[in-house]
Amino acid sequence: MERPVRHFEEELEALQNRLLEMGGLAEERVRASVQGLVTRDAAMIEHVLRGDEPINRLHIDIDNRCFRLIALHQPMATDLRGIVAAVKINSDLERVGDLAVNIAEAAKRYVTHAPVKKLIDIPRMGDLAQTMLRDALDSYVKRDTALSRTVLNADDELDALKTQVFRELLTYMLQDPTTVEPALDLILISRHLERIGDHATNIAEDVIFMVSALDVRHHSPES
Amino acid sequence: MERPVRHFEEELEALQNRLLEMGGLAEERVRASVQGLVTRDAAMIEHVLRGDEPINRLHIDIDNRCFRLIALHQPMATDLRGIVAAVKINSDLERVGDLAVNIAEAAKRYVTHAPVKKLIDIPRMGDLAQTMLRDALDSYVKRDTALSRTVLNADDELDALKTQVFRELLTYMLQDPTTVEPALDLILISRHLERIGDHATNIAEDVIFMVSALDVRHHSPES
Repeated sequence: MERPVRHFEEELEALQNRLLEMGGLAEERVRASVQGLVTRDAAMIEHVLRGDEPINRLHIDIDNRCFRLIALHQPMATDLRGIVAAVKINSDLERVGDLAVNIAEAAKRYVTHAPVKKLIDIPRMGDLAQTMLRDALDSYVKRDTALSRTVLNADDELDALKTQVFRELLTYMLQDPTTVEPALDLILISRHLERIGDHATNIAEDVIFMVSALDVRHHSPES
Repeated sequence: MERPVRHFEEELEALQNRLLEMGGLAEERVRASVQGLVTRDAAMIEHVLRGDEPINRLHIDIDNRCFRLIALHQPMATDLRGIVAAVKINSDLERVGDLAVNIAEAAKRYVTHAPVKKLIDIPRMGDLAQTMLRDALDSYVKRDTALSRTVLNADDELDALKTQVFRELLTYMLQDPTTVEPALDLILISRHLERIGDHATNIAEDVIFMVSALDVRHHSPES
């Protein structure tokens, strides 16, 4: 087994920095996929389709760091919950990267058709999903459950937008069959964005669970 | 902190049994949601919509068991990877339970319309997704990566079925606008089933990663 050459606190901070880096990459890919759709920019869409590798490398690196931290330092309750939460957040961020690819795939099909309508709610959903991701990660770093809760509220807003997008596109599809295929792609994109919000929500719930479990333990008679 | 009253091995086995129980519940909810759709059975659909509580309770119980095992027994590499994988599998199974609810929600809307067509591929997708879940969990319990790989192959089959369902329903929607709404719900259901397959795939990949990471460590010069 490797020697613990660096101090535990330094390793923890390095782990957190990698998670933030991964969050930044995931966010950027969501931004680019939606911008590629809105501006009908085939090169940008292609860039998202091909650019999954850095996130996948970070995913493995972060996972390994988590295990090394637990195995070498045998952290107690607070730190252990934080590190296992990092394993889960890492999975969520990797899947956000996959969803950016799914958005780019649908966008690539969409831009081969005439535009169904001017896109307003979908870019709003994209902005909201990015903000949720950023806030969820911030709430992890700061152990700030009030900030986690704003993510849960934003998820309701995202769901409402998704429903609105669906209803509006349904009207187009019922009136004009030539819109059915491209409108379906927009509906799928709105659902991918909703799922990105779900991953941000998972992260926020993990933070709340992590902090509250510690609180419970703190006040428990067995502690 | 509680005393380690039970032996580590017993606790590990109890954890595994809970995971299998949770997998069984998740699988049963997927089965009931698809059967409710196919037989247009409003009571069965309602039962799925209301029955999320046992899975949610198990989710918290399993999570707590994992942390207790790590904190009290400070397991080494093999066991540690297995327990952290259990934390992730637990999240995947909880989300499968949520997806069964999503299927039931779409099924509840679908049965208010005339049937678009006889459902053949969607029940096949449901059967396949259930088999994938069962095999993925079995591969975890047995550390059987050959079985994990059959889950990855089945996922390609599930994706192909999803694409087939999509194309067929698109034809209906283009020919007859009255089918647009119910056909959309069937498309959504096929995507929920695909996501259930994705969760089974996540579990299978975790098993492969867990076993291969141990192999790597085993042959590493630092070990």
